[in-house]
Amino acid sequence: MDKHDRVLVEMTPVGFVSRLSRDENEKDRSLTTKIVFDEYLSPALEGIDEWSHIYVIFLLDRIAQAEKPALLHPEKEVGIFATRSPIHPNPIGLTLVELIKREGNEIWVRGLDAYDGTPVLDIKPYPDWWKGQLIVVTNYEIPGWLTDIMEGHE
Amino acid sequence: MDKHDRVLVEMTPVGFVSRLSRDENEKDRSLTTKIVFDEYLSPALEGIDEWSHIYVIFLLDRIAQAEKPALLHPEKEVGIFATRSPIHPNPIGLTLVELIKREGNEIWVRGLDAYDGTPVLDIKPYPDWWKGQLIVVTNYEIPGWLTDIMEGHE
Repeated sequence: MDKHDRVLVEMTPVGFVSRLSRDENEKDRSLTTKIVFDEYLSPALEGIDEWSHIYVIFLLDRIAQAEKPALLHPEKEVGIFATRSPIHPNPIGLTLVELIKREGNEIWVRGLDAYDGTPVLDIKPYPDWWKGQLIVVTNYEIPGWLTDIMEGHE
Repeated sequence: MDKHDRVLVEMTPVGFVSRLSRDENEKDRSLTTKIVFDEYLSPALEGIDEWSHIYVIFLLDRIAQAEKPALLHPEKEVGIFATRSPIHPNPIGLTLVELIKREGNEIWVRGLDAYDGTPVLDIKPYPDWWKGQLIVVTNYEIPGWLTDIMEGHE
């Protein structure tokens, strides 16, 4: 590594996840969830509802962070970067969600797998684009173990 | 806002972007770029190459951060959350890239729009999944101004 080795990054949440009930199963992607942004950011949401889908980047603040993160997924015998395990070196969550509506400093989304009260760091529109082309990837390859999960509806 | 108002998040880069040349146009998504991870994270990359595409979450450390971030995009008259402007309240970059190969603690990707030396915070496999279904969104809607850009190949 180089001189950047010890860079520390400081960030402040732009808003928080507000679920209908704290008892909701946050893994249920069919549920609708509200994100409440800091009020001063309301103008920054202008026009967001012209997009049907957005990425939500959030802080995994309920995930116990070990001093040294696990490097291998305990069940799948692959590295943690090759999985969607929440235990990555940095506690960043990333979920692509459907945007239902926006009202002032609040948005409603469907499919956000985050606990009530989760700090949100950023949102970004989907899809990205370059040179007059939207970047929508449909020709992907996935690992064999995921295909097994898909077939088993785990 | 609530008691979480002043949460500060600390993160440490897991690696850095290493471009073939510092003079490369980082916006050119056809270029291949290396990400060099901290050596201790090499096992965490095991199996990553079974995925053809990954998300790279990185730090926009060259983007001047104003004390108060801009809330409206200067050209498009929409909020900055409704755009891919790099000037969001938190300096987080997110790009979906093609994974070319992995060797030890290094991976090669195509389509990463980040400067040489950019700190990388996390990578995640694409696509996500839920209940035996891959989450690949092809039925999206985009704003009129983006359609105009697409047609003009801006």
